[in-house]
Amino acid sequence: MKIAIPIFDRFTALDAVGPYEVLSRVPGATVSFLAAERGPKRTETAMLALTADLALDELTDPDIVVVPGGYGTRALAADERILGWLRQAHQTSAWTTSVCTGSLLLAAAGLLDGLEATSHWLALDALAEYGAIPVSRRVVEHPDKRIITAAGVSAGIDMALTLAARIAGDELAQAIQLGIEYDPEPPFDSGLPAKASTAIVELVRNNAGRLA
Amino acid sequence: MKIAIPIFDRFTALDAVGPYEVLSRVPGATVSFLAAERGPKRTETAMLALTADLALDELTDPDIVVVPGGYGTRALAADERILGWLRQAHQTSAWTTSVCTGSLLLAAAGLLDGLEATSHWLALDALAEYGAIPVSRRVVEHPDKRIITAAGVSAGIDMALTLAARIAGDELAQAIQLGIEYDPEPPFDSGLPAKASTAIVELVRNNAGRLA
Repeated sequence: MKIAIPIFDRFTALDAVGPYEVLSRVPGATVSFLAAERGPKRTETAMLALTADLALDELTDPDIVVVPGGYGTRALAADERILGWLRQAHQTSAWTTSVCTGSLLLAAAGLLDGLEATSHWLALDALAEYGAIPVSRRVVEHPDKRIITAAGVSAGIDMALTLAARIAGDELAQAIQLGIEYDPEPPFDSGLPAKASTAIVELVRNNAGRLA
Repeated sequence: MKIAIPIFDRFTALDAVGPYEVLSRVPGATVSFLAAERGPKRTETAMLALTADLALDELTDPDIVVVPGGYGTRALAADERILGWLRQAHQTSAWTTSVCTGSLLLAAAGLLDGLEATSHWLALDALAEYGAIPVSRRVVEHPDKRIITAAGVSAGIDMALTLAARIAGDELAQAIQLGIEYDPEPPFDSGLPAKASTAIVELVRNNAGRLA
């Protein structure tokens, strides 16, 4: 099973690494990080680089695609190298998925036209502009379309466990959850705009480049 | 504020990237990935490489240390380059922390002698062998010793939010939680041995190299 995670400059690391950590544990799965060109790709803070081991044209028939988000998606949403790759990969993939603003790329490729989909809470309006129907849910699954989108950043872990259950069964997904000891205990309950105070929501909105 | 995340071959990516994603959002923080030598370091699956941008001896006075785990900790637990670096860094750090089996390295460096600490649930016995007192808690904090240890893999996100609150206040930590949309919805409730079925626990225990 070939799992492809395309990365790019100014991506969000946890969007990609959460699903990697889950999906790399599926028996028989090979996870590949790839990009327009091979080599290190830096996150939006520039403080971390992950290596793209393959160029996009070296893996065009993945079984699973996971597209992370990040501020770099804004430039890529008009880049036919990635959009064409996504369209081609989706023709034969079992599942094409996104985390956070990765859904903007799926939408820009035309894969979310008229479909309910999700994204980071700050990007739901942008998602609508690309023709999707934005919804505030953590994971939005379309089995008939082989599409799953997840909400912001950390939602990729939940999405990937859902996906692991689809491709390898509930028991294995539960084993992976135990393997990564995913029994969350956030010290606060402010992970959604509806749960955080107005002051916190405004703080994030006004400092989105740093905090979101 | 200098935040140092030492990495090494056969580390667990999410152990490092969860805290990175939280702590890189703290205003004024610079997160550096470092290793015995600069360059790419591969995870235990070999499917992903992160770049160490600095050698250990290029940053010896970090304000915060976050040590990830992974099978590579077994070899490093007798490597004076990392153990000596940890001892020196802890002399001046505000907080020295670990995720998953990263606590084995803190313990091997002598920083957890006689202290309650945690680790991946499969590594609690090993932690005792290095002189710590293992406890099954998600985050174990010793403000007087400036030490925090976290449980397996995904626990690093919870630990880092706790740490962000200590260094930058509760409001900022809550804003970061909202920024990474950390409102977990695991599709199963099997993230701890006590919550998973016996069959699942045995499946992970018998396939620890792949699943845990």
